[in-house]
Amino acid sequence: MPTNQPLVGIIMGSDSDLKIMQDAANILKEFNIPFELTVVSAHRTPMRMVEYATKAAERGLKVIIAGAGGAAHLPGMVASLTILPVIGVPVKSSNSIDGWDSVLSILQMPNGVPVATVALNAAKNAGIIAAQIISTSDEKIAAALKQYKNDLETSVLNKAKNLSAEWQNSFDNF
Amino acid sequence: MPTNQPLVGIIMGSDSDLKIMQDAANILKEFNIPFELTVVSAHRTPMRMVEYATKAAERGLKVIIAGAGGAAHLPGMVASLTILPVIGVPVKSSNSIDGWDSVLSILQMPNGVPVATVALNAAKNAGIIAAQIISTSDEKIAAALKQYKNDLETSVLNKAKNLSAEWQNSFDNF
Amino acid sequence: MPTNQPLVGIIMGSDSDLKIMQDAANILKEFNIPFELTVVSAHRTPMRMVEYATKAAERGLKVIIAGAGGAAHLPGMVASLTILPVIGVPVKSSNSIDGWDSVLSILQMPNGVPVATVALNAAKNAGIIAAQIISTSDEKIAAALKQYKNDLETSVLNKAKNLSAEWQNSFDNF
Amino acid sequence: MPTNQPLVGIIMGSDSDLKIMQDAANILKEFNIPFELTVVSAHRTPMRMVEYATKAAERGLKVIIAGAGGAAHLPGMVASLTILPVIGVPVKSSNSIDGWDSVLSILQMPNGVPVATVALNAAKNAGIIAAQIISTSDEKIAAALKQYKNDLETSVLNKAKNLSAEWQNSFDNF
Amino acid sequence: MPTNQPLVGIIMGSDSDLKIMQDAANILKEFNIPFELTVVSAHRTPMRMVEYATKAAERGLKVIIAGAGGAAHLPGMVASLTILPVIGVPVKSSNSIDGWDSVLSILQMPNGVPVATVALNAAKNAGIIAAQIISTSDEKIAAALKQYKNDLETSVLNKAKNLSAEWQNSFDNF
Amino acid sequence: MPTNQPLVGIIMGSDSDLKIMQDAANILKEFNIPFELTVVSAHRTPMRMVEYATKAAERGLKVIIAGAGGAAHLPGMVASLTILPVIGVPVKSSNSIDGWDSVLSILQMPNGVPVATVALNAAKNAGIIAAQIISTSDEKIAAALKQYKNDLETSVLNKAKNLSAEWQNSFDNF
Amino acid sequence: MPTNQPLVGIIMGSDSDLKIMQDAANILKEFNIPFELTVVSAHRTPMRMVEYATKAAERGLKVIIAGAGGAAHLPGMVASLTILPVIGVPVKSSNSIDGWDSVLSILQMPNGVPVATVALNAAKNAGIIAAQIISTSDEKIAAALKQYKNDLETSVLNKAKNLSAEWQNSFDNF
Amino acid sequence: MPTNQPLVGIIMGSDSDLKIMQDAANILKEFNIPFELTVVSAHRTPMRMVEYATKAAERGLKVIIAGAGGAAHLPGMVASLTILPVIGVPVKSSNSIDGWDSVLSILQMPNGVPVATVALNAAKNAGIIAAQIISTSDEKIAAALKQYKNDLETSVLNKAKNLSAEWQNSFDNF
Repeated sequence: MPTNQPLVGIIMGSDSDLKIMQDAANILKEFNIPFELTVVSAHRTPMRMVEYATKAAERGLKVIIAGAGGAAHLPGMVASLTILPVIGVPVKSSNSIDGWDSVLSILQMPNGVPVATVALNAAKNAGIIAAQIISTSDEKIAAALKQYKNDLETSVLNKAKNLSAEWQNSFDNF
Repeated sequence: MPTNQPLVGIIMGSDSDLKIMQDAANILKEFNIPFELTVVSAHRTPMRMVEYATKAAERGLKVIIAGAGGAAHLPGMVASLTILPVIGVPVKSSNSIDGWDSVLSILQMPNGVPVATVALNAAKNAGIIAAQIISTSDEKIAAALKQYKNDLETSVLNKAKNLSAEWQNSFDNF
Repeated sequence: MPTNQPLVGIIMGSDSDLKIMQDAANILKEFNIPFELTVVSAHRTPMRMVEYATKAAERGLKVIIAGAGGAAHLPGMVASLTILPVIGVPVKSSNSIDGWDSVLSILQMPNGVPVATVALNAAKNAGIIAAQIISTSDEKIAAALKQYKNDLETSVLNKAKNLSAEWQNSFDNF
Repeated sequence: MPTNQPLVGIIMGSDSDLKIMQDAANILKEFNIPFELTVVSAHRTPMRMVEYATKAAERGLKVIIAGAGGAAHLPGMVASLTILPVIGVPVKSSNSIDGWDSVLSILQMPNGVPVATVALNAAKNAGIIAAQIISTSDEKIAAALKQYKNDLETSVLNKAKNLSAEWQNSFDNF
Repeated sequence: MPTNQPLVGIIMGSDSDLKIMQDAANILKEFNIPFELTVVSAHRTPMRMVEYATKAAERGLKVIIAGAGGAAHLPGMVASLTILPVIGVPVKSSNSIDGWDSVLSILQMPNGVPVATVALNAAKNAGIIAAQIISTSDEKIAAALKQYKNDLETSVLNKAKNLSAEWQNSFDNF
Repeated sequence: MPTNQPLVGIIMGSDSDLKIMQDAANILKEFNIPFELTVVSAHRTPMRMVEYATKAAERGLKVIIAGAGGAAHLPGMVASLTILPVIGVPVKSSNSIDGWDSVLSILQMPNGVPVATVALNAAKNAGIIAAQIISTSDEKIAAALKQYKNDLETSVLNKAKNLSAEWQNSFDNF
Repeated sequence: MPTNQPLVGIIMGSDSDLKIMQDAANILKEFNIPFELTVVSAHRTPMRMVEYATKAAERGLKVIIAGAGGAAHLPGMVASLTILPVIGVPVKSSNSIDGWDSVLSILQMPNGVPVATVALNAAKNAGIIAAQIISTSDEKIAAALKQYKNDLETSVLNKAKNLSAEWQNSFDNF
Repeated sequence: MPTNQPLVGIIMGSDSDLKIMQDAANILKEFNIPFELTVVSAHRTPMRMVEYATKAAERGLKVIIAGAGGAAHLPGMVASLTILPVIGVPVKSSNSIDGWDSVLSILQMPNGVPVATVALNAAKNAGIIAAQIISTSDEKIAAALKQYKNDLETSVLNKAKNLSAEWQNSFDNF
């Protein structure tokens, strides 16, 4: 497999979602997982969405990350048109009352057509799930995920150590 | 125009929505407005939905009524594929937490692609809006709507009269 | 019909709603649909509302767009007084907790008296529904709506193209 | 003032609300306050509502209790048409998603046109507020309210005494 | 009754609520209704609250307006200690998540002990209800309320007239 | 300390809350912690509540558990009148819309006057917190809590074992 | 790889969740994907949870499906202890107010530690996502998923055909 | 007991919660109660959390205060691993939609494993509950709590006095 074959497709309903959705791209870059990123609007380019979703598997994608806000139909409609796992990112866009509309219209898919949903605006976590999925058949990614988890832990321990300068803490012996 | 040319297309995501959605059919029958009714699932038959929506206008439909529950994408996706007015009926189906998911995923459409939304389970009102739309160029339907409004009023006045047998009411002189 | 006969009446509960409601006016202008716009308050000018609604059809209006916030009674009360289709715009005004009050007091109309409700603050979409209703008997408006839909699509494709300068995308061949 | 002159008008949007709204009537009977009760629908009999509200003060009413469910416009619209205090009872009717629509469309009135709102389905409390209002210029009603309050207290003390038979309680010396 | 005998007691849980609650005071001033205003905290001065509430009627007050935020117990507790009508103002204070806590802990009083609740932060409307209550036995206040209602109407008509300079409106003949 | 001196006072706003609140009593019995239980209504017996709360510490109580529903003021008002820890149990009573009113009016106490709140209807957990508080100075109760925790674990392990008869599980070697 | 090596671990906080969670097991059986199923409680068997999660990958699992209700910590805590993809099923258990607690405490994971969340009670969809993940490196599962999608479509078309016996439908030519 | 032995452990999921959680520390300082404070993340340092919780009692802690936001698992997981009373502080962190996720994932613990929950961001109140718990076996803390309560009252009375300079108040004779 050439390394530049994208394995993950990141799509979003509007380029105004890019400021959120690029977090998915950035974490995939960290894991050296090839991806592509573009705008696919369920409501303004429905036929582009159909084509994107139906061709995704044959084009070599393994996972699709789809972000949208308000009445967010992109993740669920893509899931209806492909057997690839689809990770949905509810975006609190200008299109959304308060985020609940984005969450519910992505999460509450009917039986048979799931979307793996992450927290509001949590595009980074969508990228990590994509990496986890790929890691199930790629040990290098699995190793990278282990390292990432260790780094998270180290980062917290460093913060605890920093706090101990100012605040009493008899639990740690830094 | 032959009277059996359907002017309103009533579609729903699942036949389990029929018990709600038939209220739209029944009120259209009352107004003698030809309609058709079938199941079109956004998530299980996405290409059927695309075909239904893109051909609706050329097939002579004037209005589409679409009902769905949970992450209810049918009304909005149909609206993305036709210029006909689309009336959305949020259904509190087994697919729905408490109805809010159905309401929000139909109501909160982005600018450019509206869905005219009615109350939860209010398929009857969807049928009345369809009749109102058709009445803007059909005086017989307009007259029928006036009669319907008068009947609503009469029905309330009769209830008020019935209540006055048991409860004091100096406002009315029945 | 003289071209300056308004076909759509845009009303709102307060002039502070104008910054939202003018989106309905602007899109109607784009479609060359004559409209009128004024303030009609359900709570402060109830008799003006009664007169406006009861005379709307005979004055030649085909559709009414009504916007209000908080305990938003204007759309529903107008719908109780006319057989014209009434499109309700829930406005997140200073009068509203968080928009839910506006949405629910417009959307949840009882059977028999519907209001075609759009998303919070979505006056533009109200204008588009008005155009769709008029297009059911006016082919020029229908053609304009088709063009509008095409323009939406083109706009997204352009954004996708712009994004491809910075972000990898093997789906498109721009 | 003849004792049969109603001082409180109890109105509701539908006779299906009677099972809730009669609690207001029953408590007013207990306080010997003359009242009338009828059906006035904001959406199906808007002109009856206008007439009822505008004539209420001259007909001798002192307070209006109005109950409705879903997009509940009756209390607020009556308040827009009279200077009498209007007490709103949000009813969880078949018309309502979960009661929140009834509460918000009654409670969230704009500045200038208040509705004194009680808890969901709390028609009894609406009757008590009506009695409290009348008691501000009627000492007999004030005395009756004091007695009512004492009876509430006695009832709780009796329940506490009954419970003490089974459950340990060193606070009371019954 | 000396004119400076306060008829309305305005109390609030914290002086930080004053910026909201002074709207009640200002509208009472407009109606020339004597009032008093002070801080009474249910949670920090519970005995002061008991004393204030139990002595309110004998001190000549006719109505109490109580505002509080978060777990807002002041209005309901005062209502438990007096037979005067108590108007509750839910305040969106720093103490409150989003206002819902304030609304629910004031509105949802049990049967027997009502609080007449107004919209979030709607202290002005609380003042108007107080005036309406007093007007049931004071014709001067009733006349002032009529005038106030007329002024509201005039203000809207003026706004409509102003708007007509810029926006087409065939309904009005200004 | 005589063993029959109650250490925990369990109070509730209505005897209809007993079916929930007795879970607190039952778990305290399991831990052999003396308690008392009675009805104290914030709204119907406010002076009883004042007396109960102000005398609680001098009567030897260490903790108060207070349950109430709807606009649930009992826990917070008791907390305003005592320095004892007060555990609040939001009850989903007939008085409550959907439990949120009970939760918010107990949880959202202002700074300075806390209520330790448990889940909706979770009177059993209130009893366990009371035991935990007492265990901070009573090693026998601490030992009983350890045993209780072990029993919880054993109960789950037994359920896992039972399930393994029907369902594949390579993790456990029962 | 021996076919009886479980690839998916299905765990739940309580055996009372089994009636929901067995839907995940049943769909995995349909796809011939080996799985295991047991009870692991985050709150009653925290060390069992730690052991289960930390050993899952080395035991050969590829995906974990975790269901829980109320303050549902199991999916997120397992995700904190493994690099495997974790699919969370919010269960509306007796432990839950209305399902929102289950949804939010599973969905709203912090950046770095994602849980792929499905709709309330949607254990079947969790199973399908697990199959999709495995299908990214197993073509037989991919083929089975395609067949499953085709079957969904066929099932809807059959329902449409059945409906056409009773309801007019000019779109289909069955 | 040496005075520097911490009795209260304050932990939080992230150092970004410190600006909220330090309110707990500051009020404990006021009461001269020794405490420790550090960062323990349920999701990024799960084993640190296990160790902290399981050793807390033997290290001499009497109470644990745990704050977290979003899917906030720290308080509940710590409660599963210790018999000490655990006070949970829902933090409205950047991790949280609107605070409801933090509240529900802390409050809605299952029977057997309680968390004593305070209002959103109410770390100060968590500190006061900790002091109340310790005061059940420490009369000096009990006296300090009485003084604190008196100071709260005095502070309100002073505010009332200050207000009386500007606003009429016949209740007080300052």
